[in-house]
Amino acid sequence: MDTKFSVAIHALIMISESDKTVTSETIAHSVGTNASYIRRILSLLRRDGIVEGRRKVGGFNLLISPENLTLFRIWKAVSGEEPHLFDIHQNSNDTCIVGSHIKQTLTAMYGDLEQSFTKALQGKTLNDCIIEMRSEIQ
Amino acid sequence: MDTKFSVAIHALIMISESDKTVTSETIAHSVGTNASYIRRILSLLRRDGIVEGRRKVGGFNLLISPENLTLFRIWKAVSGEEPHLFDIHQNSNDTCIVGSHIKQTLTAMYGDLEQSFTKALQGKTLNDCIIEMRSEIQ
Repeated sequence: MDTKFSVAIHALIMISESDKTVTSETIAHSVGTNASYIRRILSLLRRDGIVEGRRKVGGFNLLISPENLTLFRIWKAVSGEEPHLFDIHQNSNDTCIVGSHIKQTLTAMYGDLEQSFTKALQGKTLNDCIIEMRSEIQ
Repeated sequence: MDTKFSVAIHALIMISESDKTVTSETIAHSVGTNASYIRRILSLLRRDGIVEGRRKVGGFNLLISPENLTLFRIWKAVSGEEPHLFDIHQNSNDTCIVGSHIKQTLTAMYGDLEQSFTKALQGKTLNDCIIEMRSEIQ
Protein backbone atom coordinates (compact mmCIF):
# COMPACT_ATOMS: atom_id res chain seq x y z
CA MET A 1 0.00 0.00 0.00
CA ASP A 2 1.40 3.41 -0.95
CA THR A 3 0.07 6.66 0.54
CA LYS A 4 -3.32 6.43 -1.28
CA PHE A 5 -5.06 5.21 1.89
CA SER A 6 -3.66 8.09 3.98
CA VAL A 7 -4.53 10.65 1.30
CA ALA A 8 -8.07 9.24 1.09
CA ILE A 9 -8.55 9.66 4.86
CA HIS A 10 -7.12 13.20 4.65
CA ALA A 11 -9.58 14.07 1.86
CA LEU A 12 -12.53 12.49 3.66
CA ILE A 13 -11.80 14.39 6.89
CA MET A 14 -11.79 17.64 4.90
CA ILE A 15 -15.05 16.78 3.11
CA SER A 16 -16.68 15.73 6.38
CA GLU A 17 -15.50 18.66 8.48
CA SER A 18 -15.83 21.59 6.13
CA ASP A 19 -18.89 23.87 6.08
CA LYS A 20 -17.91 25.09 2.64
CA THR A 21 -17.75 23.19 -0.63
CA VAL A 22 -14.53 21.17 -0.80
CA THR A 23 -13.05 20.81 -4.28
CA SER A 24 -10.22 18.58 -5.46
CA GLU A 25 -8.06 21.75 -5.68
CA THR A 26 -8.70 22.59 -2.00
CA ILE A 27 -7.83 19.04 -0.95
CA ALA A 28 -4.73 18.96 -3.18
CA HIS A 29 -3.49 22.20 -1.58
CA SER A 30 -3.85 20.68 1.91
CA VAL A 31 -2.37 17.28 0.96
CA GLY A 32 0.52 18.88 -0.92
CA THR A 33 -0.11 17.23 -4.27
CA ASN A 34 -1.85 18.02 -7.55
CA ALA A 35 -5.61 18.08 -8.09
CA SER A 36 -5.60 15.34 -10.73
CA TYR A 37 -4.11 12.86 -8.22
CA ILE A 38 -6.83 13.81 -5.72
CA ARG A 39 -9.50 13.36 -8.41
CA ARG A 40 -8.13 9.83 -9.07
CA ILE A 41 -8.48 8.95 -5.37
CA LEU A 42 -11.93 10.54 -5.15
CA SER A 43 -13.12 8.65 -8.21
CA LEU A 44 -12.24 5.39 -6.38
CA LEU A 45 -14.23 6.57 -3.36
CA ARG A 46 -17.09 7.63 -5.62
CA ARG A 47 -17.13 4.28 -7.40
CA ASP A 48 -17.56 2.60 -4.02
CA GLY A 49 -20.44 4.93 -3.03
CA ILE A 50 -18.47 6.69 -0.28
CA VAL A 51 -18.66 10.17 -1.83
CA GLU A 52 -20.58 11.86 -4.60
CA GLY A 53 -19.31 14.68 -6.76
CA ARG A 54 -21.57 17.71 -6.77
CA ARG A 55 -21.07 18.74 -10.36
CA LYS A 56 -22.74 22.14 -10.30
CA VAL A 57 -20.74 23.40 -7.34
CA GLY A 58 -17.68 21.36 -8.27
CA GLY A 59 -17.26 19.84 -4.82
CA PHE A 60 -17.71 16.55 -2.99
CA ASN A 61 -20.18 15.18 -0.50
CA LEU A 62 -19.99 12.24 1.93
CA LEU A 63 -22.65 9.59 1.28
CA ILE A 64 -21.95 7.64 4.49
CA SER A 65 -21.85 9.22 7.94
CA PRO A 66 -18.34 9.33 9.47
CA GLU A 67 -19.58 7.06 12.30
CA ASN A 68 -20.50 4.37 9.79
CA LEU A 69 -17.58 4.74 7.39
CA THR A 70 -15.01 2.15 8.46
CA LEU A 71 -11.32 2.30 7.58
CA PHE A 72 -11.82 -1.17 6.06
CA ARG A 73 -14.26 0.24 3.52
CA ILE A 74 -11.88 3.08 2.64
CA TRP A 75 -8.97 0.61 2.33
CA LYS A 76 -10.99 -1.64 0.03
CA ALA A 77 -12.17 1.29 -2.08
CA VAL A 78 -8.68 2.67 -2.72
CA SER A 79 -6.76 -0.60 -3.00
CA GLY A 80 -9.47 -2.51 -4.87
CA GLU A 81 -9.06 -5.57 -2.65
CA GLU A 82 -9.25 -6.97 0.86
CA PRO A 83 -6.09 -6.42 2.92
CA HIS A 84 -3.21 -8.46 1.52
CA LEU A 85 -0.20 -8.31 3.83
CA PHE A 86 1.98 -11.25 2.82
CA ASP A 87 3.55 -12.62 -0.33
CA ILE A 88 4.31 -16.30 -0.84
CA HIS A 89 7.18 -17.53 -3.03
CA GLN A 90 5.75 -19.35 -6.04
CA ASN A 91 8.48 -21.76 -7.22
CA SER A 92 8.56 -24.26 -4.36
CA ASN A 93 9.67 -27.73 -5.30
CA ASP A 94 6.81 -30.22 -5.39
CA THR A 95 9.14 -33.19 -4.99
CA CYS A 96 9.89 -32.04 -1.40
CA ILE A 97 7.21 -32.65 1.25
CA VAL A 98 7.66 -29.14 2.70
CA GLY A 99 7.91 -27.51 -0.74
CA SER A 100 4.73 -29.17 -1.93
CA HIS A 101 2.67 -28.06 1.10
CA ILE A 102 4.12 -24.66 1.97
CA LYS A 103 1.69 -22.68 -0.18
CA GLN A 104 -1.48 -24.11 1.38
CA THR A 105 0.09 -23.90 4.85
CA LEU A 106 1.04 -20.24 4.55
CA THR A 107 -2.23 -19.37 2.83
CA ALA A 108 -4.10 -20.74 5.87
CA MET A 109 -1.80 -19.04 8.41
CA TYR A 110 -1.85 -15.70 6.58
CA GLY A 111 -5.60 -15.90 6.09
CA ASP A 112 -6.06 -15.86 9.87
CA LEU A 113 -3.69 -12.93 10.29
CA GLU A 114 -5.23 -10.91 7.46
CA GLN A 115 -8.65 -11.62 8.92
CA SER A 116 -7.62 -10.15 12.26
CA PHE A 117 -6.22 -7.09 10.47
CA THR A 118 -9.49 -6.74 8.56
CA LYS A 119 -11.41 -6.84 11.85
CA ALA A 120 -9.15 -4.12 13.29
CA LEU A 121 -9.82 -1.93 10.21
CA GLN A 122 -13.54 -2.64 10.53
CA GLY A 123 -13.37 -1.49 14.14
CA LYS A 124 -12.13 2.02 13.26
CA THR A 125 -14.16 4.69 11.50
CA LEU A 126 -13.60 8.04 9.83
CA ASN A 127 -15.22 9.52 12.93
CA ASP A 128 -12.48 7.98 15.11
CA CYS A 129 -9.94 9.79 12.90
CA ILE A 130 -11.85 13.07 13.30
CA ILE A 131 -12.02 12.63 17.10
CA GLU A 132 -8.29 11.86 17.16
CA MET A 133 -7.55 14.95 15.05
CA ARG A 134 -9.66 17.16 17.33
CA SER A 135 -7.70 15.92 20.32
CA GLU A 136 -4.43 16.66 18.46
CA ILE A 137 -5.64 20.20 17.69
CA GLN A 138 -6.53 20.96 21.31
CA MET B 1 7.29 -7.07 2.72
CA ASP B 2 8.45 -9.28 -0.17
CA THR B 3 8.60 -13.09 0.09
CA LYS B 4 11.51 -13.09 2.62
CA PHE B 5 9.12 -13.80 5.51
CA SER B 6 7.51 -16.76 3.72
CA VAL B 7 10.90 -18.16 2.69
CA ALA B 8 12.14 -17.81 6.29
CA ILE B 9 9.17 -19.84 7.59
CA HIS B 10 9.73 -22.46 4.85
CA ALA B 11 13.41 -22.75 5.86
CA LEU B 12 12.62 -22.92 9.58
CA ILE B 13 10.03 -25.67 9.08
CA MET B 14 12.64 -27.72 7.20
CA ILE B 15 15.29 -27.13 9.87
CA SER B 16 12.83 -27.99 12.62
CA GLU B 17 11.31 -31.07 11.00
CA SER B 18 14.29 -32.78 9.45
CA ASP B 19 16.22 -35.57 11.16
CA LYS B 20 19.14 -34.99 8.85
CA THR B 21 21.40 -31.96 8.57
CA VAL B 22 19.69 -29.26 6.55
CA THR B 23 22.03 -27.13 4.44
CA SER B 24 21.28 -23.92 2.55
CA GLU B 25 21.47 -25.99 -0.66
CA THR B 26 18.75 -28.38 0.56
CA ILE B 27 16.52 -25.47 1.53
CA ALA B 28 17.17 -23.63 -1.75
CA HIS B 29 16.16 -26.77 -3.68
CA SER B 30 12.85 -26.96 -1.79
CA VAL B 31 12.14 -23.19 -1.96
CA GLY B 32 13.04 -23.04 -5.64
CA THR B 33 15.77 -20.42 -5.38
CA ASN B 34 19.56 -20.26 -5.09
CA ALA B 35 21.58 -21.13 -1.99
CA SER B 36 23.11 -17.67 -1.64
CA TYR B 37 19.64 -16.12 -1.22
CA ILE B 38 18.83 -18.71 1.47
CA ARG B 39 22.13 -17.96 3.21
CA ARG B 40 21.18 -14.26 3.27
CA ILE B 41 17.86 -15.07 4.97
CA LEU B 42 19.51 -17.49 7.39
CA SER B 43 22.13 -14.93 8.32
CA LEU B 44 19.30 -12.58 9.38
CA LEU B 45 17.79 -15.39 11.48
CA ARG B 46 21.21 -16.19 12.91
CA ARG B 47 21.86 -12.55 13.82
CA ASP B 48 18.64 -12.58 15.82
CA GLY B 49 19.57 -15.80 17.65
CA ILE B 50 16.86 -17.91 15.99
CA VAL B 51 19.25 -20.38 14.31
CA GLU B 52 22.91 -21.26 14.51
CA GLY B 53 25.04 -22.47 11.66
CA ARG B 54 26.82 -25.72 12.40
CA ARG B 55 30.01 -25.00 10.50
CA LYS B 56 31.60 -28.45 10.63
CA VAL B 57 28.55 -30.21 9.25
CA GLY B 58 27.50 -27.23 7.14
CA GLY B 59 23.92 -27.22 8.34
CA PHE B 60 21.62 -25.22 10.58
CA ASN B 61 20.09 -25.70 13.99
CA LEU B 62 17.09 -24.07 15.68
CA LEU B 63 18.01 -22.23 18.90
CA ILE B 64 14.39 -21.62 19.95
CA SER B 65 11.77 -24.37 20.19
CA PRO B 66 9.04 -24.10 17.52
CA GLU B 67 6.46 -23.61 20.30
CA ASN B 68 8.28 -20.51 21.51
CA LEU B 69 9.28 -19.06 18.15
CA THR B 70 6.59 -16.52 17.25
CA LEU B 71 5.90 -15.27 13.74
CA PHE B 72 6.45 -11.78 15.15
CA ARG B 73 10.06 -12.65 15.99
CA ILE B 74 10.63 -14.12 12.53
CA TRP B 75 9.04 -11.03 10.90
CA LYS B 76 11.26 -8.69 12.91
CA ALA B 77 14.38 -10.71 12.18
CA VAL B 78 13.90 -10.71 8.41
CA SER B 79 12.47 -7.20 7.99
CA GLY B 80 14.66 -5.53 10.59
CA GLU B 81 11.71 -3.64 12.08
CA GLU B 82 8.34 -3.89 13.80
CA PRO B 83 5.41 -4.35 11.39
CA HIS B 84 4.90 -1.20 9.33
CA LEU B 85 1.70 -1.45 7.31
CA PHE B 86 0.88 2.13 6.33
CA ASP B 87 2.62 5.02 4.65
CA ILE B 88 1.74 8.65 5.31
CA HIS B 89 2.16 11.39 2.70
CA GLN B 90 4.84 13.82 3.85
CA ASN B 91 4.10 17.14 2.12
CA SER B 92 0.88 18.18 3.85
CA ASN B 93 0.30 21.91 4.02
CA ASP B 94 0.85 23.33 7.50
CA THR B 95 -1.30 26.39 6.76
CA CYS B 96 -4.40 24.14 6.65
CA ILE B 97 -5.79 22.87 9.97
CA VAL B 98 -6.25 19.35 8.57
CA GLY B 99 -2.91 19.39 6.73
CA SER B 100 -1.04 20.45 9.85
CA HIS B 101 -2.53 17.68 12.04
CA ILE B 102 -2.93 14.76 9.65
CA LYS B 103 0.47 13.22 10.36
CA GLN B 104 0.00 12.98 14.14
CA THR B 105 -3.60 11.83 13.65
CA LEU B 106 -2.72 9.01 11.26
CA THR B 107 0.36 8.04 13.28
CA ALA B 108 -1.91 7.50 16.30
CA MET B 109 -4.59 5.62 14.31
CA TYR B 110 -2.06 3.43 12.50
CA GLY B 111 -0.16 2.79 15.73
CA ASP B 112 -3.25 1.10 17.17
CA LEU B 113 -3.77 -0.99 14.02
CA GLU B 114 -0.11 -2.03 13.76
CA GLN B 115 -0.18 -2.93 17.43
CA SER B 116 -3.12 -5.29 16.87
CA PHE B 117 -1.30 -6.86 13.90
CA THR B 118 1.80 -7.28 16.07
CA LYS B 119 -0.31 -9.06 18.70
CA ALA B 120 -1.73 -11.39 16.04
CA LEU B 121 1.82 -12.23 14.87
CA GLN B 122 2.88 -12.78 18.49
CA GLY B 123 -0.02 -15.20 18.89
CA LYS B 124 1.20 -17.56 16.14
CA THR B 125 4.29 -19.73 16.31
CA LEU B 126 6.45 -21.82 14.02
CA ASN B 127 4.82 -24.80 15.70
CA ASP B 128 1.37 -23.58 14.55
CA CYS B 129 2.76 -23.57 10.98
CA ILE B 130 4.09 -27.12 11.44
CA ILE B 131 0.74 -28.32 12.81
CA GLU B 132 -1.04 -26.64 9.89
CA MET B 133 1.33 -28.28 7.42
CA ARG B 134 0.81 -31.71 9.00
CA SER B 135 -2.93 -31.29 8.61
CA GLU B 136 -2.43 -30.28 4.96
CA ILE B 137 -0.30 -33.38 4.35
CA GLN B 138 -2.89 -35.73 5.83
